Amino acid sequence: MTHIPLTNTFHTFSGALNANTDLLPASCGEEMTRGFLQELVDILLGFICKSNQRSSKVLDFHHPHQLKEGLEGFSLDLPDQPETLEQLLVDCRDTLKYGVSTGHPRFFNQLSSGLDVIGVAGEWLTSTANTNMFTYEVSPVFLLIEEVLLKKMRSIVGWADDEGDGLFCPGGTISNLYSILLARYHFYPEVKTRGMGALPRLAMFTSEHSHYSVKKSAAVLGIGTENVVVGLVPFYVNATAGTTVYGAFDPLNAIADICHSHTLWMHVDAAWGGGLLMSDRHRMKLQGIERACSVTWNPHKMMGVPLQCSAILVKKRGLLQECNKLGAQYLFQMDKPYDVSYDTGDKSIQCGRHVDVFKLWLMWKAKGSDGFGSQVNKCLENAEYLYDQLQKRTEFELPEHSNVCFWYIPPSLRSLPPGSDRDRRLHQVAPRIKGRMMEKGSVLIGYQPLGTKVNFFRCVFSNPATQQEDIDFLLDEICKLGADL
Amino acid sequence: MTHIPLTNTFHTFSGALNANTDLLPASCGEEMTRGFLQELVDILLGFICKSNQRSSKVLDFHHPHQLKEGLEGFSLDLPDQPETLEQLLVDCRDTLKYGVSTGHPRFFNQLSSGLDVIGVAGEWLTSTANTNMFTYEVSPVFLLIEEVLLKKMRSIVGWADDEGDGLFCPGGTISNLYSILLARYHFYPEVKTRGMGALPRLAMFTSEHSHYSVKKSAAVLGIGTENVVVGLVPFYVNATAGTTVYGAFDPLNAIADICHSHTLWMHVDAAWGGGLLMSDRHRMKLQGIERACSVTWNPHKMMGVPLQCSAILVKKRGLLQECNKLGAQYLFQMDKPYDVSYDTGDKSIQCGRHVDVFKLWLMWKAKGSDGFGSQVNKCLENAEYLYDQLQKRTEFELPEHSNVCFWYIPPSLRSLPPGSDRDRRLHQVAPRIKGRMMEKGSVLIGYQPLGTKVNFFRCVFSNPATQQEDIDFLLDEICKLGADL
Repeated sequence: MTHIPLTNTFHTFSGALNANTDLLPASCGEEMTRGFLQELVDILLGFICKSNQRSSKVLDFHHPHQLKEGLEGFSLDLPDQPETLEQLLVDCRDTLKYGVSTGHPRFFNQLSSGLDVIGVAGEWLTSTANTNMFTYEVSPVFLLIEEVLLKKMRSIVGWADDEGDGLFCPGGTISNLYSILLARYHFYPEVKTRGMGALPRLAMFTSEHSHYSVKKSAAVLGIGTENVVVGLVPFYVNATAGTTVYGAFDPLNAIADICHSHTLWMHVDAAWGGGLLMSDRHRMKLQGIERACSVTWNPHKMMGVPLQCSAILVKKRGLLQECNKLGAQYLFQMDKPYDVSYDTGDKSIQCGRHVDVFKLWLMWKAKGSDGFGSQVNKCLENAEYLYDQLQKRTEFELPEHSNVCFWYIPPSLRSLPPGSDRDRRLHQVAPRIKGRMMEKGSVLIGYQPLGTKVNFFRCVFSNPATQQEDIDFLLDEICKLGADL
Repeated sequence: MTHIPLTNTFHTFSGALNANTDLLPASCGEEMTRGFLQELVDILLGFICKSNQRSSKVLDFHHPHQLKEGLEGFSLDLPDQPETLEQLLVDCRDTLKYGVSTGHPRFFNQLSSGLDVIGVAGEWLTSTANTNMFTYEVSPVFLLIEEVLLKKMRSIVGWADDEGDGLFCPGGTISNLYSILLARYHFYPEVKTRGMGALPRLAMFTSEHSHYSVKKSAAVLGIGTENVVVGLVPFYVNATAGTTVYGAFDPLNAIADICHSHTLWMHVDAAWGGGLLMSDRHRMKLQGIERACSVTWNPHKMMGVPLQCSAILVKKRGLLQECNKLGAQYLFQMDKPYDVSYDTGDKSIQCGRHVDVFKLWLMWKAKGSDGFGSQVNKCLENAEYLYDQLQKRTEFELPEHSNVCFWYIPPSLRSLPPGSDRDRRLHQVAPRIKGRMMEKGSVLIGYQPLGTKVNFFRCVFSNPATQQEDIDFLLDEICKLGADL
């Protein structure tokens, strides 16, 4: 197949074209609309292709003040008068130019990475359809797609066919917040009307390495961060399947046993690890997840779905509705001419809700369950390859119990004995290498301290574009950038 | 300018093309990626153009069970094996076909409507950039765009240059939730660690017609819905600028006086009405908004920005950070090689946060502040025109104090005296007309009961595509569909 380059008819007309007068819904705006969007698509296609070229930079870094001052005519200011369509296209080009290529094979910085073409296609369609998840009347197809996806995900988790409920929501933190909200309501339904003042002092359990969203939700919900972990009346246990830094898994069956004998709500935060459920080879890491009362699972992480795509799955049917409904009749009329149980608006703590499901559905169609499984396997093979390389090379050290986190030890530190002096100096290595990396734009990887461990790199694999050569490049680049530290 | 139709080179090759093997990041996937996305864009352009044709249907309604059974080969099921790229394009076409054209000039159903081409372009770019709002290192341009937009919006609200803070968040309900969360923290910072158990029984005030999100947030935050409105220790007043049904405005200055003398947090829910701030002619309806402690403003409503686009503005600088930060060092490192005050992740109750700002920024560039003002004025002119027409025509009645809500009175009811019998029958008129409307797909408008008033239509104007002829069409269509009731 050959690509036919777009003819530049648009440019020749665009001296002072104006979005308000020349694009749809203006009469006769159709041709100009097609021309403008085609130009944009050419820019976007260029960006997508460039993101996949290893020779291109991962980012073209500038400090905030540099971008704010305006670079080569790129101004962030909001004008009183319209800009021309031509200028808007330049703005689009500049926005991508000064941004970060999260789809680049050498972008390792976040749990979400990669640029799935089908996922992008799904998002383009979603934004063109421009509708809202609250009622069937404005989102018939998307609501059914959500139902199909949630049902599939619940069956993958291991719940029975007629069990469970769920929602897609804006990110894993909100999914986790739902789990606590529902657990609290499940044990103390009076909290909805009477508030926390009517309840005993509650406590929640979670591990040290669990995501901060558990504590943050405790603050938001009026439980208080102090009441996470310690004594009092326990009602909720968060088990993490794939911690943020180490990618570690809590023992789900053991936790489920305890929750069962003490009648506690068991939530599994599988925001990151949920993707492993798609893999026959790796899903045993989540054994016991089927015993959870609720599960957070973010397809936008290990499954490579474009942001945002995060689900909360709930085993007890009807609880989402009971807990969150306010029965606002003026929005959710019961006398509508269709089965209004498909109106999910009152189950949510939001009102309007973005369509996050279509891209996942389209990707599922494109890959099949089997294809998703292979993709996840590939991510884990990359992690294993990195681990092997790190073991082989003397410039690196690994924190215990981890296969994706590591220190680079510069030559000047290699002969130092372990101790606080070495730690103090090692702590500065990762930030300095990262700074050089960002300036150079060759690769991007995250770092952090954790507990008593000084700053170390964390390498995350969720990008299907990443190959072994990129991992080799990463290690070589770190050595190159850190040799003089 | 002439539109060059896409050549169908893609089709001739697409017998069994597979997303996993033939698109990027597969090697040699570039041409096929361009071809596939071009095909998709052709489908999307077709949808955009059709949405703007009055002769096309607003929706092609099917009941849930019909869509689930599969229509002419449109299957929602998730396969184990990949579908071909060809089939995925058919799926995309079908998804749009069975959906709702929220951009159609005769879609009056929701506060958010219209399909702004520049906004769509902004969303296409956003999803292609596929990044996250939590740190400057992965979202440099988008975070600065957010800063520029929030600053502009605060200055339009009327706050001083160095005053205020804010965030874009997933919808107006979450924006309103933030306002209560911040107010509670402002007066009782110990709530964050110790929970509601450490506080006196709090009360919040809001009006009967305010959005249900105020009550819902009270439930989520552990305050309890019973504690909205009544006695106890008041700390928070919600004033609505543009109620959901009537579009009514609370007297902001009078409420500000009371809040000032009792040291209460004043929040203005201007999710719907905030757009009027852009209009010199109408912004006086929000006089006093500059005295608020926090403001919810959804550009995705009256300003016609694609979903979702909602801001919470906060007058007190630093409060968002203080209230929500957990200082998760492993995510928000302080030793990064740039000014980390641009990392907004710890201000938010989310962790990852979708990029909702670029489309608004691009639209602002495209229209200028003046253009947004004219667009808002046009919406209000449409409302005035509808009001005039309703006054002139005997088939309609209006609830008091409203210029966009109305009953259609079928011939059989016109001679009936006011009273419960007439009310009972009138209550069924709007749902039945709506049902016929949905079947026919000619126009879409919402209805609801409110207080003692039986079901009435609510006509909302936020769609710049809507002209007077569409309003005439709406009224004629209602008369036609309801004549025999």
